[in-house]
Amino acid sequence: MTDTVEKKRPPAEPDGTHDEAGYVLEPDFVKAVVEATEEGASENLKQLLEPIHYADVADLLQGLDPDIRSALVDAIRAEFDPRILAELDETVRDEVITQLGVDDVASVLSALDSDDAIDIVEQLEPEQQREILEAVPDIDRTLIEQGLTYPEDSAGRLMQREMVTVPNVWTVGDTIDFMRRAAEEEERALPEQFYDLYVVDPGHRPMGAVALSRLLRSKRPVPVADIMTERLTRIPVTMDQEEVAFIFRQRDLVSAAVIDDSERLVGSITIDDVVDVIEEEHEEDIMHLGGVRTDDLYRAIIDTTRFRFPWLLVNLVTAVVASVVISLFQSTIEKMVALAVLMPIVASMGGNAGTQSLTVAVRALATKELTSTNAFRVIGKELIVGGSNGILFAVLTGMVGAIWFASIGIGAVMALAMIVTLLVAGFAGTTIPLVLARSGVDPAIASGVLLTTITDVIGFFTFLGLAAWLLF
Amino acid sequence: MTDTVEKKRPPAEPDGTHDEAGYVLEPDFVKAVVEATEEGASENLKQLLEPIHYADVADLLQGLDPDIRSALVDAIRAEFDPRILAELDETVRDEVITQLGVDDVASVLSALDSDDAIDIVEQLEPEQQREILEAVPDIDRTLIEQGLTYPEDSAGRLMQREMVTVPNVWTVGDTIDFMRRAAEEEERALPEQFYDLYVVDPGHRPMGAVALSRLLRSKRPVPVADIMTERLTRIPVTMDQEEVAFIFRQRDLVSAAVIDDSERLVGSITIDDVVDVIEEEHEEDIMHLGGVRTDDLYRAIIDTTRFRFPWLLVNLVTAVVASVVISLFQSTIEKMVALAVLMPIVASMGGNAGTQSLTVAVRALATKELTSTNAFRVIGKELIVGGSNGILFAVLTGMVGAIWFASIGIGAVMALAMIVTLLVAGFAGTTIPLVLARSGVDPAIASGVLLTTITDVIGFFTFLGLAAWLLF
Repeated sequence: MTDTVEKKRPPAEPDGTHDEAGYVLEPDFVKAVVEATEEGASENLKQLLEPIHYADVADLLQGLDPDIRSALVDAIRAEFDPRILAELDETVRDEVITQLGVDDVASVLSALDSDDAIDIVEQLEPEQQREILEAVPDIDRTLIEQGLTYPEDSAGRLMQREMVTVPNVWTVGDTIDFMRRAAEEEERALPEQFYDLYVVDPGHRPMGAVALSRLLRSKRPVPVADIMTERLTRIPVTMDQEEVAFIFRQRDLVSAAVIDDSERLVGSITIDDVVDVIEEEHEEDIMHLGGVRTDDLYRAIIDTTRFRFPWLLVNLVTAVVASVVISLFQSTIEKMVALAVLMPIVASMGGNAGTQSLTVAVRALATKELTSTNAFRVIGKELIVGGSNGILFAVLTGMVGAIWFASIGIGAVMALAMIVTLLVAGFAGTTIPLVLARSGVDPAIASGVLLTTITDVIGFFTFLGLAAWLLF
Repeated sequence: MTDTVEKKRPPAEPDGTHDEAGYVLEPDFVKAVVEATEEGASENLKQLLEPIHYADVADLLQGLDPDIRSALVDAIRAEFDPRILAELDETVRDEVITQLGVDDVASVLSALDSDDAIDIVEQLEPEQQREILEAVPDIDRTLIEQGLTYPEDSAGRLMQREMVTVPNVWTVGDTIDFMRRAAEEEERALPEQFYDLYVVDPGHRPMGAVALSRLLRSKRPVPVADIMTERLTRIPVTMDQEEVAFIFRQRDLVSAAVIDDSERLVGSITIDDVVDVIEEEHEEDIMHLGGVRTDDLYRAIIDTTRFRFPWLLVNLVTAVVASVVISLFQSTIEKMVALAVLMPIVASMGGNAGTQSLTVAVRALATKELTSTNAFRVIGKELIVGGSNGILFAVLTGMVGAIWFASIGIGAVMALAMIVTLLVAGFAGTTIPLVLARSGVDPAIASGVLLTTITDVIGFFTFLGLAAWLLF
């Protein structure tokens, strides 16, 4: 069966994964699965799910009510594709693992590639981890346990240990013969898919890599050392995965060699492993900017509530700080209630302008485009942009205030406060993430709340302060 | 020369690209380049830049002051690596292209792969595009112009036309011989790098793909049709690149065949092309959520100010709407100024809680995890989470209000308003992106401003309204 992907092609493909939005599970298909599950029609279910890609089955499971999900997992337990587990969101995976039980999970793990198996095992509770690993066959357990010795989120966890290495004295012919022999003798000796061979010296240190497309174009007597590229990127096994992803993107790499402390080749990382890291990273950035822990969609209501609470609590504290600033000017507001009406405008504009600067800065820090080399220039630019928009909005909001409350004074105060606040917003929006990054704090998490505290305080203080000073 | 990547290895590598933060250009190195440029020491410059990866040269150029950048481009014009241009940010690239002039850019384009060349050409002004294309040699111009006939951001622009296709009647031996011959006769006939061969029928329709690692493991007499995988993903040439990226991630693809209307094979897309699309998409999502146009860091101050202005203007309108709501209660505030002090707390908590729901929803829409199938369940969940946190913060803020202003009444009003606002925030934070996505509007752009308008209006209205109703 083949996958033809096309946007507007009614009716749906027989595998039920195409609708007008593209590659999504058809509502009708999901309905059919739910009905078959509820009726316990397991033959019917098997037929429905057989042509579906494992990643889509994972999506299907994630989208179902927990009860139906559990019934469905029971129904397909016998032909459960191990790769489904690797594709599942962490929360749903936990449920499914508990339901499958130790033995079934152990056989899933030994059927998976070592890096996928490690990915699943590393997220288990220590107790569960031990239990399940004991049930995994020895050979696979060793590979998994070796992988677990590398630090979490390191290159060691990301790499495949399965790769093809070739002594530097071999020829193209030797290499091709070796691969054909290996394929015959023992299927497991060669990785399922690979794009490069690594040429190693007698100490198993990588000397270079040969792309398969290069190997295939070369004559049998040519030594591999002649066609290898020496410009091979070597990644220390302990390097953080975000750093690995950054290097892959920066250098447009497709694969890289992973080396240990003594520079021996221990594995290889390919671009498809890195794509998942890039995804994770971005998910984190977006979620953190929005004040959410990752992985929230499938969590139980109680956990979601609990995880969101601390962030809201921090925001409550900052909101109270802003209120304290307002309370300093209670007597001023009493004299002129118009101030209470207009003051949120100044604070809100400050918050939004600051968020613009902050978004650019957080993103540029993540892509390493904002560094100590250009920090002052970027801050200077944000100050000018803040000042320019400050003047534009000073004119606008000054007019709004003056006309609304028929008072040139209020308009003038509004205009002045707007300039000051947008200047501060541009400065703070850039400086806060820079300072946080310098101190080793993730700027995506903490920048927003610090920024709005500052823009609120400055916004309320300058507006009410200028009013108290100039209008009475 | 080889790249060894290591985190803490002072002193810097000779190529100047490693410091404590990893793969970033060393400040000292940048300083040396700037000095050599200012002094016009072109021999020195050449030596400095020679070992540097082209992607790092692009980064270096982006980080420099425009004057220095322009002087540096002039200094390295003779040995300008074409790939630098492909790596540059759009704004800086425009500058460099103008500086290099038609003839130099034309020779850069013909040196690049067709997809990179198209990437550069498609972003030129029509006038400039015509001028430069006229200067490009015929063969390359044809390829570029063909590419430009596909819609912007389509699979056709993303794919490589260079690929290896094999008739379905060939054997492994035929294929290897063909590749060796092609490599000898004409270097350009085979793509620089490839991972799969496509097996085509006499009508040039793709029947399957053979991974090179599979080909190498097979004996010469084996027919390619026997070892090809028929589960080949076929992507229509007009499919949007975001959809392509989604399919690659969903199916864990490394490459896919691109077909035209009559199902003929016209090109292939590999995962490394898709990584750039994923990056672009994420950049867009983050920037849009923050109210910024992409590509802001390197833009001139005047453009940045102009591009950020409309977003702030929209926010001004919504802030004024919130102020109108407050103005309805001027007499209430006059009677009790404490209300003016406390009202921003309610609105701010509503905005933050709503942003949490909204971030999860926008992200889940982007990953197609939020669909019509589970929309009601997710909305229901957000309502309960909003209500639960509403109750928790009702207690907290009610106590703050009651103690601060020594009034149980104020505390009660605060508590009630908080529950209503957080409920609405949870509902609006999920429903707004869903409705926008349904109507074909990018939820990342418009959701935030709609949300805060709603949470501000509801926050101020319930708090002040309840106060007016219950306290007087």
